[in-house]
Amino acid sequence: MISDSTIQAIHKFTEERNWGQFHTPANLAKSICIEAAELLEYYQWVPEAPAADAEHAQEELADVLTYCIMMADALGVDMDNIIMNKLAKTKRKYPSEAVRNNFNEYETRHLNARSDSKEAIKE
Amino acid sequence: MISDSTIQAIHKFTEERNWGQFHTPANLAKSICIEAAELLEYYQWVPEAPAADAEHAQEELADVLTYCIMMADALGVDMDNIIMNKLAKTKRKYPSEAVRNNFNEYETRHLNARSDSKEAIKE
Amino acid sequence: MISDSTIQAIHKFTEERNWGQFHTPANLAKSICIEAAELLEYYQWVPEAPAADAEHAQEELADVLTYCIMMADALGVDMDNIIMNKLAKTKRKYPSEAVRNNFNEYETRHLNARSDSKEAIKE
Amino acid sequence: MISDSTIQAIHKFTEERNWGQFHTPANLAKSICIEAAELLEYYQWVPEAPAADAEHAQEELADVLTYCIMMADALGVDMDNIIMNKLAKTKRKYPSEAVRNNFNEYETRHLNARSDSKEAIKE
Repeated sequence: MISDSTIQAIHKFTEERNWGQFHTPANLAKSICIEAAELLEYYQWVPEAPAADAEHAQEELADVLTYCIMMADALGVDMDNIIMNKLAKTKRKYPSEAVRNNFNEYETRHLNARSDSKEAIKE
Repeated sequence: MISDSTIQAIHKFTEERNWGQFHTPANLAKSICIEAAELLEYYQWVPEAPAADAEHAQEELADVLTYCIMMADALGVDMDNIIMNKLAKTKRKYPSEAVRNNFNEYETRHLNARSDSKEAIKE
Repeated sequence: MISDSTIQAIHKFTEERNWGQFHTPANLAKSICIEAAELLEYYQWVPEAPAADAEHAQEELADVLTYCIMMADALGVDMDNIIMNKLAKTKRKYPSEAVRNNFNEYETRHLNARSDSKEAIKE
Repeated sequence: MISDSTIQAIHKFTEERNWGQFHTPANLAKSICIEAAELLEYYQWVPEAPAADAEHAQEELADVLTYCIMMADALGVDMDNIIMNKLAKTKRKYPSEAVRNNFNEYETRHLNARSDSKEAIKE
């Protein structure tokens, strides 16, 4: 879990440095992207990070989460809330009886929606 | 916060669809990147997402968090733990008395470390 | 421009190291993302990279382009071709007479298409 | 190749829409990231994009390249130049006689440099 005390520790860290001024949604969105890519780097050429890198990969994940916590704060939203709301939508999009053990059905729902949107965007 | 019940709801979602087989660390790292960039898209040309988009931006943040929860599970780590461990390191790197109201000092510590590493990498 | 001799130099670099085996489309797509985020890092908190960083930013752009060249090769496409084909579509999507000096009209076309697609995806 | 006529076509596209005002390095860096992640999405769960998606993947690569061309312009650099300069550095970092058919040696050079830098950054 991510407890309230962890979130408060991050707030305190930011306040002590007076860094709230830099934590605009746009800057935090960039920061999440940057850290996400650093995490991805551990899997750039291989499906599993070398054991020697396991600790570093965890730290990159921690960086992503830390900026997400700051972003939730900047947007004024509760993480539990937005995750559960989105999960409800995703469940409707991918009913388990339709997609379980059926990657093609998932792919079709995923790509059809996307292809449609691409066409909508392009034409 | 992100409560254990939210994490369990995500686990249940994955299990009902038998999607654990796709949730390798490498695939989840890609997924975090993809969703992070979708969040960034709301701030591509403007510092604030248009109000009409606020709900969508929240959903993209929820997507990033959902994949992070799955990634923590795939790596077998506790989110509170890795965030607090990393925060302790970051505090040592940027002591508040050194960087508070001193962006140049932050930049120097951030960029020096990076420039050194870039040289180390390149040469 | 990116001349054929530059492209050939990159091919030679790859062949001499026998690295073609790693250059699957999936691995190259990850690599493009990783380097793109390293470029973004120079603009994480500021709109302009510090002058001292200008050279490093150029190198990150070079990294993105190098992986794009490898990706075009992996997909068997010509860069001039795909860029001009996509440009033709984008011109149709954003006619200059509609969007010139009219950010709202751009935003509407951009976000409408996206919002539609998001709904299509979610529901 | 990417010919000068393609680059000029992109300039003309931008000028006709008066979009140069939005093409700051920071905005273009975000845009490259966003498009790179859209390309990655075709390889999110599978190593090869489904054939039906091949054309769309090409368009995402075209988007990345288009923003890179705009970025080179914003930075005032020549793409051939920066690619060849960076290639020279990368050759020195990874001599073919050291890394050819030796992924471990590559990994060591890649990760050592990175781990050192991470420690430098963190401590």
